[in-house]
Parts: sequence; structure tokens; C-alpha cells
Amino acid sequence: MHSDPTGLHRVLSPAGVLPQAARELDVRRELWPDEVRVRVSRLNLDAASFRQLVTKHEGNGAAVRAEVLDIICTRGKMHNPVTGSGGMLVGTVEEVGPESPLGLRVGDQIATLVSLTLTPLVVTDGLAGWNGLSEQVPCEGYAVLFARSVAAALPPDLPTPLVLAVMDVCGAPALTARVVSSYVERDRPPVVCVVGGAGKSGSLSLAAARQAGAARTIAVVPVQREIDLVSEASLADMAVLADARDPVPLSEAVRAAGGPADVTVVCVDVPGCEGGAILATAQGGTVIFFSMATSFTAAALGAEGLAADVTMLIGNGFVTGHAAYAMDLMRTAPGVRKLFEARLEPETAR
Amino acid sequence: MHSDPTGLHRVLSPAGVLPQAARELDVRRELWPDEVRVRVSRLNLDAASFRQLVTKHEGNGAAVRAEVLDIICTRGKMHNPVTGSGGMLVGTVEEVGPESPLGLRVGDQIATLVSLTLTPLVVTDGLAGWNGLSEQVPCEGYAVLFARSVAAALPPDLPTPLVLAVMDVCGAPALTARVVSSYVERDRPPVVCVVGGAGKSGSLSLAAARQAGAARTIAVVPVQREIDLVSEASLADMAVLADARDPVPLSEAVRAAGGPADVTVVCVDVPGCEGGAILATAQGGTVIFFSMATSFTAAALGAEGLAADVTMLIGNGFVTGHAAYAMDLMRTAPGVRKLFEARLEPETAR
Repeated sequence: MHSDPTGLHRVLSPAGVLPQAARELDVRRELWPDEVRVRVSRLNLDAASFRQLVTKHEGNGAAVRAEVLDIICTRGKMHNPVTGSGGMLVGTVEEVGPESPLGLRVGDQIATLVSLTLTPLVVTDGLAGWNGLSEQVPCEGYAVLFARSVAAALPPDLPTPLVLAVMDVCGAPALTARVVSSYVERDRPPVVCVVGGAGKSGSLSLAAARQAGAARTIAVVPVQREIDLVSEASLADMAVLADARDPVPLSEAVRAAGGPADVTVVCVDVPGCEGGAILATAQGGTVIFFSMATSFTAAALGAEGLAADVTMLIGNGFVTGHAAYAMDLMRTAPGVRKLFEARLEPETAR
Repeated sequence: MHSDPTGLHRVLSPAGVLPQAARELDVRRELWPDEVRVRVSRLNLDAASFRQLVTKHEGNGAAVRAEVLDIICTRGKMHNPVTGSGGMLVGTVEEVGPESPLGLRVGDQIATLVSLTLTPLVVTDGLAGWNGLSEQVPCEGYAVLFARSVAAALPPDLPTPLVLAVMDVCGAPALTARVVSSYVERDRPPVVCVVGGAGKSGSLSLAAARQAGAARTIAVVPVQREIDLVSEASLADMAVLADARDPVPLSEAVRAAGGPADVTVVCVDVPGCEGGAILATAQGGTVIFFSMATSFTAAALGAEGLAADVTMLIGNGFVTGHAAYAMDLMRTAPGVRKLFEARLEPETAR
């Protein structure tokens, strides 16, 4: 059997689907000619998946660990069947197939930028070094990358947990910058509103919008503490309080802060934010949905119901050059780095 | 209480949500100053809602009719609680509030272009003229339009059932034309692939793509009968057979027909078409999802998993000028009209 750049050759069931849609992947150690094998040192479970597991097991770390092991063993990948999400991993390149186009060399320290939901994975240490209560999982084993996978070298000047946290959301600032630039190129520097501006993807998106030439940046956050965070970090020109699920107060707050927005970026992972984002956006504007809690039908019918002629983008986790761009933002926008470090502290302390 | 252009003042519960998200709307007959009241003559239930009702009641028309009446009575709008969808209506303008910005006059024959899921509606004839077994529902009663609603005059030269069928999907050709034009303006006439090219929105999107200057149009359909339909109507440069849920065969078929596509338009209402659409699209290309069965997460994670740097658009049902544009296509692309009329026949015959 020949290999396919998408990894189709490693799908065991059901036949014909892509690796992400598969129930089970083939984890054989031997590589096809265009593959790469990575010795894994750390997994980073995605936030939604980790939250679901901890809630289900009522904070029992041993039970969380057992379920993660069971998922990986059964499916050949870390693909949470309830949330549909995965995460990413860090490791060292162990073997490179002669036809791999990824440009990796044995010994490279890398993070994968395609989801764990499609990455063949074997764990060999029973996750013995993990207490089941942190998103970042020390781990021994191996993973396989396909010809169409994406991996980024770990920058030597930044701590690995910080790098992982940034890479996890690096599609958001890259796409935000691209959209803002398209306005700037047409001599229309946009007003940009980021809903959930104090979070990981939100703070990076604010920094990206400013760097790409936004006329004005507005952060929408739900509590005063986050207003303070955004202000201290100088992340936005204005920070305003609003519940992202209340369309009219949200759009009024954005208007009062210099809106409506030409570009609205939705970064809060709660359902029901579609109407507010659409209403806060000017006719002819653009809404970028990065929240995985976005409902396709609520967005489509919501815009129609408001006669809102807005372009609505599904936030794609892959944008060419996204990891390097996010790392640059992290280095050059000091407020962003402080905010990430503050978020990582509680976890490091556990 | 003041009125709000979005219709917020008619939301009875829950408080603060937009009319579409409401459980129940206020259907009082008296108008706020910016509203319009319409005497209804016909409802057009959306296809997904009608199918769900008929299936649930096993083809018992009286039971379908009773449930539609119950929904309208209980909610003050025709908003199917299972599918979340509604439809549209046809009627005659009965009263225009002095501050209405819609430009309507008493006596105008119109179709509403905002969903029934947010339109206050009262039925006065118990739907006595309907057998419960057609999407189009003869009906007496009234409906209310808000300042931000959209209505289009019925063109006198086309039969009403045909007009309704076209208006129901008129966002798709308008957005397709806009995206194709943006490529043409940059001197890059695109290859356009329409998945589900023989359907209502699909056939109009094919006609729109060609009219806007596509370099080549490719229709993807699931059965030979639809290849014949598309060919007879001269709707596309090529028509190919593929199951939209099988990513690799789909993308190979598109490639063989002159792809990959620069612009892929998804018009088939079945789940699981995200991966194939993404894989059939060139790097840097655009995917427009019009299918209400689209999964936001499957699209977002699917593109990331394929390292596909594609722009993914949520098909917005509202685009400025969409109804007039679709009617023009219907008049000027004779193949499209024939295809619509063939689809309407079985219903008219019932």
C-alpha cells in the first residue's frame, strides 16, 4: 500500500475517511517513505478536552490519566470522543523518511502544529510522570507525522510551556493580521474588536491587529479584573465590559468605544456569541470566529435575520507562517508575554 | 417601550436575546412606528423543517398541520424547535409605520427575505387550505416586519412558486459572485467547483460563477441522473460524479476535471462534506459553506489537519441585492429556470 500525504494509509476504520475522522489509526513503528517519527516528551491536551475529562471524573487525576491512556490505546491517537478535540505534542525527531517534505532532521526539537486528533501516537510509560491534573502531560512514546503535517522547531530562547501555550492558538493572530492587512492595503485601516481580548488567542489577536495597522483596537471582556489585565498590558486602545452573549449591550459597548467594528474577532469559548459579534460589526465588515463553541447555523441565520451584510470566516488553525509570527509577537509585545506567563503560573505551581 | 430595529421589543422570553433566539414573540397587531404589517397569503417552510415534520408524523398531513399551527401559536413565529429553521412568506403590505425605512407601500406584493424564525406571525384560518404535505402553505393571517427586516417585491413576470423557490436560496449565488469577482479583479479568474451543483442553490451558484467570470466551472453531483441534468442545462463546463463525504475520491474527481478549485462552494445538505471540500481546494483558495449541515469544528480542525491554508466562509443568507441578482440569473440562464421548474412540478402536482 502506498502512502498518502494526508495519512489516509494509516486509517484502520472506517475506510476512506481522513485520519481526523477515523475511529482508529495504524500506529506501526515502521515509516512509509514520506513520514517522520518523533520521540514524544510532552503532550498538551486542548483546554476543552481537558476540562471535559476533569469534570467527568470529578477531579480524580488517576481516573483522568486512565481514560487518556485508554483513548490513546484504543484509537491510536489522542482524540477525545466527547469534545472531538485533541491538542499537540513536543518531542525530538527520531527518524526521517527519505521522501519526507517537512525539512526536519534527526535530533530536531519540535512541536507539532496539526491536531493530536489525527496524529498516530503510542505511549510507552503509562503516563507515569503525570498526575492527571494538568493540560501539559509529560510522556514517553512516539508519534508519526505525514507529508502534509506541520511541525515547528522549538525556539531556544523561550521556555517550552510558554511556547506550547502560544503555538496552541497561533492560527488566530496570523489570520487576524491577514484580514486587517487586507483592509490596510485598500487604505481603510479598520476598527478591530476582539471579544475575549484577555485570553490567549484574544491577546495575541489584539497585538496582531495593532501590528498590522488597525486604526483602533477594542477589547471586550466580561469582568473588571480583565479590564485591568488588558490595560496594564497596554493590549488595546480601549477595553470595555460586556457579556458576549447579550447582543444589544455588547454592540452598544463597542459603539461607545469607537465602533462599530470593521473587523470583529470572536475568541471566547462559550456558546451564543454569534448574534452579538454580528451586531457589533459594521455593514460590509468581517467577523472571524475562532471559538470552537461557534454554531454554524446560528451565525448563518443570525446574519440573515439582522440583514447584516458581513463576511463571516471560520477560524482556520493553519495559516502559512503562523507559528513564527506568533513567536515574534510574543517577543515584541511585552504585554502579551506577561499575560501568558501569568496564566501559566497556576499550572506550573500545581 | 421604544422599538429596536432588530425587533428586540417584541421578544417576550427569554429577556435580552434577539428575536431569532427567542422562545416567544409578541404578536400584537398594533405597529411600533418603524414596523410594517403584512397580510400573509402563503408560507414557504424551509426544506429541513418540512422534512423533519413529515418524517416525525409518518406522512400524516393532518398531524403535520396541527403541529405547525401549534408552533406558530405557542411561539408567535414559525420556528421549528428541532431543526432550528423556519422559511419565508408571501403577502400584501397592509400597514406601514411612519418611521419604517423599508420603502414599502400599502398594497405591495412582497416576499420576506428574513427567516420566519424571527418574524412575528399570526394565523387566522387554521391553515384550512393546506393538506400538510407541501412545503408551500396557503395561509391567512398577518406578520410583522422590523426596521432591519428585508422584503422584496414579487416580480410580475414570474410565477410565485418559482419566485419563492429562488428567493429561498438567493444568498448563495450573490456571495459566490462576490467571491469570484474578487479573484477576477486581481486578474486571477478562478476555477470554481460547486459540490451539489444540480440542486437549487448549487445550480444558481454555478450560473453566478460563470457570469462573474470564472475560468472554469465544475459541478460535483452524486448520481448519473444529475450529471445528465447539469449537462442538458449547460450549467457547468464539467460535471463529475463523487460522494461529497469521501474526501480523496472527491478531490481526485475535481482534479481530473481541471481542478484543484480556487473557489469551492458547498451546497449539499448532508453532514461530513468539510474534509472533501477543503481537500479539493488549492492552497490559498476559498471554500464557501452554504450547507446548513456544516460543522464549524469539522471545518476548522479539518483545514488545520490538512495544513490547508484556505479561507473558509460561512454562507451568509443576506448579501445586498441578492434577490434581484438571483431573479436576473433565473431570467438570463435558461438552464437554471428549467431545472427549478422541473423540481417544482412534483409539488405542484400534489
